[in-house]
Parts: sequence; structure tokens; C-alpha cells
Amino acid sequence: MAQLRNKQVILKDYVSGFPKESDMNIVDSTITLKLPQGSNDVLLKNLYLSCDPFMRNLMNKPQGPPNPLSYTPQSVIAGFGVSKVLESGDPNYKECDLVWGFSKWEEYSLVPSTQILFKIEHTDVPLSYYTGILGMPGLTAYAGFFELGSPKKGENVFVSAASGAVGQLVGQFAKLTGCYVVGSAGSKDKVNLLKNKFGFDGGFNYKEEPDLNAALKRHFPEGIDIYFENVGGKTLDAVLPNMRVHGRIPACGMISQYNLTQPEGVTNLAHVVYKRIRMEGFNTADFYHLYPKFLDFILPHIREGKIVYVEDIVEGLENGPAALIGLYGGRNVGKQVVVVAHE
Amino acid sequence: MAQLRNKQVILKDYVSGFPKESDMNIVDSTITLKLPQGSNDVLLKNLYLSCDPFMRNLMNKPQGPPNPLSYTPQSVIAGFGVSKVLESGDPNYKECDLVWGFSKWEEYSLVPSTQILFKIEHTDVPLSYYTGILGMPGLTAYAGFFELGSPKKGENVFVSAASGAVGQLVGQFAKLTGCYVVGSAGSKDKVNLLKNKFGFDGGFNYKEEPDLNAALKRHFPEGIDIYFENVGGKTLDAVLPNMRVHGRIPACGMISQYNLTQPEGVTNLAHVVYKRIRMEGFNTADFYHLYPKFLDFILPHIREGKIVYVEDIVEGLENGPAALIGLYGGRNVGKQVVVVAHE
Repeated sequence: MAQLRNKQVILKDYVSGFPKESDMNIVDSTITLKLPQGSNDVLLKNLYLSCDPFMRNLMNKPQGPPNPLSYTPQSVIAGFGVSKVLESGDPNYKECDLVWGFSKWEEYSLVPSTQILFKIEHTDVPLSYYTGILGMPGLTAYAGFFELGSPKKGENVFVSAASGAVGQLVGQFAKLTGCYVVGSAGSKDKVNLLKNKFGFDGGFNYKEEPDLNAALKRHFPEGIDIYFENVGGKTLDAVLPNMRVHGRIPACGMISQYNLTQPEGVTNLAHVVYKRIRMEGFNTADFYHLYPKFLDFILPHIREGKIVYVEDIVEGLENGPAALIGLYGGRNVGKQVVVVAHE
Repeated sequence: MAQLRNKQVILKDYVSGFPKESDMNIVDSTITLKLPQGSNDVLLKNLYLSCDPFMRNLMNKPQGPPNPLSYTPQSVIAGFGVSKVLESGDPNYKECDLVWGFSKWEEYSLVPSTQILFKIEHTDVPLSYYTGILGMPGLTAYAGFFELGSPKKGENVFVSAASGAVGQLVGQFAKLTGCYVVGSAGSKDKVNLLKNKFGFDGGFNYKEEPDLNAALKRHFPEGIDIYFENVGGKTLDAVLPNMRVHGRIPACGMISQYNLTQPEGVTNLAHVVYKRIRMEGFNTADFYHLYPKFLDFILPHIREGKIVYVEDIVEGLENGPAALIGLYGGRNVGKQVVVVAHE
């Protein structure tokens, strides 16, 4: 049986502090494109790989109870992706099926079929969308905003990392709900996107605001009902005193803290008591049962152009490490995707 | 009409930092024990006054939107209390009714009847209980633990300020629910109370633990499902990494922070995301509709001796300021009550 080159992204060692491109290696491995006899696994050709902030945490040396997803030094890293089934030992999948789920950063992957989350049924939209608006980040925005945020028409919504994979959707969902929505992002161009592309009512560049509290007061003179939390740290600390009574904080991520060996202290938590705030961390894995309902909601909006999605696409697995690292410095504009193969 | 002496506790000025007894004055005012003609108010004889941590916040110079309860310099302070109705302009109350609600720190008070929360119907239990187990703190423990905590049999519960007005009840509710419960308190005697009086499975003196994280790991090798938050700051920071997935943190108060001009920073909030924790501040005022249900639950337990309650009672309004200040240094053992008059 012929062996094929299988380019891979390997984590050299556990990472402490800010990750660097050199923490990863590109290696050429080989693979036989044939399922081992009797295997129930699925052989995938990876098409699009997703760069997601949570991947940073998988690079840490595990402390306490092990995370089953944590990366192992000298092994291929893993993440969400869109793949084509080459061969399946699980009767639920067959050759040429398109799927999305948890795959590996390599050209071809042999994975347990349980790592496939969903078969892709709708292909009149860009396939890369299944790493973003139609994948985990889309469901994240949907579950976090609607299920945890419990938004009501006329409420005031603040989103951090607002032009990112999740944030740009939260803003658009907020507008569809009749909310006032303002986002923060890390460049003038991103702030322009918020207002001109995604329909936010306002936005600010947090890097150019000497006083985040003042920026929030300027945009929310009457306070914030829902803060969709993507960054943590200083932004969260500035938000807390600006929350309204019975405010909600769906805590999707705290990307500003992931690379710090000593996280920043949040001093304004007493406002959680004073304002009766509900702050709730969540993991999209707890909401996969909503995926069909989510698709019914979002597909028509995409087709009618009522919801847009900005992707930052790089070509080639060899450019994956730089793209992934770029997330933590905010280099990406919109959802960061790596193309491994177009089909 | 004869005028009567009306002893009062006056706040001298707004307080910054740790409050002192000398921030308050005891003065002799006078009052005519007759409702003004046409008034809808209620004239009360105050019997028991409640010392509650939140009162510290009312002493602050108001910043931002005013709190209608905030104290005014040179005026009588206010708080929860048990009172006897002397005369009522509201037909819902009549002479000799016993009531509990928001009253003032003085012998006699003329208050709008809306400040009365409930008429006291059950007097086979100590009347002072309506400042504690049968009053706001009791309902606080009930709503916070059962409504926000959603406890399940077998879960692990941690309570801070565990021998206090609310904490001692949370621990007993946890045991009634079949949970494992450990509390922290600020003296050896209080920790003994937890175990010997309230039936906690364990407890520790946070002042004698060099490493709160280690203390929690010792008592909760498998982690914490519910943290009933009364103190904030360092304790909260140590708790967060010890929470289990889908843990709940009803945030009742953060007494350790109330007297700090610069609050402590909480660095471990990313665990809210990692562990999908729900942290929720609450105010008992949102749960008064549960009070009848709460009484149905708790009165039989009190009468059968299945729930006990420890009070720290001082005699005389003139000793009120010291009792109130004592809360913030943890001088009280159990619910701090001030007796103004026995009937």
C-alpha cells in the first residue's frame, strides 16, 4: 500500500507565557490512506482548520485533573476543523461525507468517529463557515447570548473582542434582538468593521483608551445589561461597576489572561453582589443539542445577507502556527481559518 | 401632648475605610407618641435591631446612582428590626401588632408603612429570631442556597463566614439536603461551633491557614460544587481553582472588601470559564415572595430542634455602634442583635 506524505504541526514542548511560532514544528510524516482492518475509526482529509483561543490552554503543562484534550509534547496539535471522509469504520459516515468536529493539525487524520460532531448538510454556503459562523464559534455566540444572556429588546449590550469569531456574531444577534450594542476591539480598522460591517451602534479601540471606565461610561451612560465576556482582566474590571442591576455576564473566554503566568487581579467583584449580577462561564460542548435549532435560525439570515461573517483565511498548514499565535496578539481580523486543502 | 425621650444612633459623617465606634453618636432626641393627623405612616416601638454587613456600604459617600437606603450624615442610621406597632395610619396594621422590616436605630420610629415587610404571626419562638433565622438573613440563606445554589444530595458545599447569621443556616440546610459541608470562620471557637453545634462535616480558621488553597484541597480533595460566598477577596480567589465543573457560587456578600479603599484583586476568574461556573449576586429583596414558603419549611425544623440558631445579643441601643462595628472584625459569634426594648 502506497504511503503518502502527511504534513503535521507538532508542539515541541509545554508552553509557559506567550506562545511563539517556534513552539511548533512543521514535520513531514507519512500515512497509509487505508483504514486498519476492523477499525471503527474514520480516515479524514482535513480541509479547513480553526484557530481558537482555547487552544492556548491545551499547550500548558497539565496541573490538577488532566484535560483529555491537552496537547502532548512532540505530538500533533488538535482543534476544530472541516474534513472530508476518505474511509469510515463507523456506518454513520461514508466516503465523501463532509464533516466538522475535533480533528488534528495535519493533512490526513485517523480519528475516533466520536470526534466528529456533525455531518455537513448545507453546502450552498462557504465550507470554511463550519469552522466559524456555522461551527463552534457560531453556536457559542448563539448559546452564550440567547441562552445565558437572556436578552430583551432595548437592553444595552457590550461585547469585547467584538470583531472576532464569536464577537461579530454576538453584535449582530444583539441588533436582531433590538438591543443597543457596543464593542471593543484592538485596532481602528476593527472598530470600523464593527460599525460599518456588523451594524454595532458603537465601538472603541481599547488600546487607545487611557481609561476603560470612562470609555464605557461614554458609550453606556445608563449602564450595561449584558456583557459578553471574551477577554477578562482589565476590561472585566472596568465593566463591573458599569453593569446595571440584574445584569448578565456570559463568560465565553478570557483571552487576555491565557498567556500571563500571573493573571491580573479583578478588584470590582463586589459589584456582582451590589448589582445582583449573574456571571456564568460556559462551554459550547454543553449546547450541541441546540445545533439543529441554531442552523434553522442562522442559515436563512446568511442566505438573505442579514448576517455577515468576516474570516481571516491563511493558505497552507505551514502557515498555521503563525496564524494561531496571531490570535493572542489580535493580528487576525475576524475568524482565523487555516486552509489545508480546498477539497 | 407629652414628649418622650427618643435615644438615637447618628452617623457623624460618611465613612471611608474601616468604620469606628466614634463614627456614630448616641443622642437623646424627643418624640411625641402620636401619629400626625391624616398620616398613613406607622409609629413603631423598636424592640430588636439587626446588625448586618451591608450596613457598612450605606455609610459610604454615594458615588454614581444614589442608593435610596444610603445614610445621611447627622441623621439616624437605619436597618432591619423587630418592632411593635403603637399607632398605624395604614389599615393593614393595628396597635400591638409585631412586625419586622426596615426600621431606624432609635427607640421609637415613625416610618412609611411600606418599610414594614411582614407582620409576625408566630410568637412561640424568640422574637429576636425575626432579625435572623426568621428574618432577612434566614431568607437569604434559603434563597441563596436552594434557589441559586440548586443543591443536590451528595454535593460538596463550602461556606465562608460560616458561623455568621447566614452561614450557620446554609451549613444546616446543606446537611438537611444530604451534602458534605465545610465552613471557614475566624476563630477556633467559631470553628468548633460549626462542627459541634451546626453539624458541619468540617471547618477551618482562615486566619491560621498559611495557604487557603491547601486548606481547601485538604477538605475538598474532589472539589467544591457550591461555594456560598460571604467574604470575597482572598477566599474567593482560593476557591475558584477548587471549584468543580458546573459549580455554583451564590454571592451573598463580600464583607472582606467593604472596608478596603482599594479592594483586593481576584486573579483566578478564568476558572469561571474553564469550570463553567455560575456566580450570581443576589439581594434578598428579590425573594420576599418566598417568605411564606420559607416559614413553612423552617418553623417545624426550629420547633423540633432540627435547626438551631446562635445569636450574639447585646443589651441597649447605646451598645449598638460597638456591636455593628464588631461585625467587620468578626467579634460577633453568630447573629448580632441589639436589644432596644424587650417588649
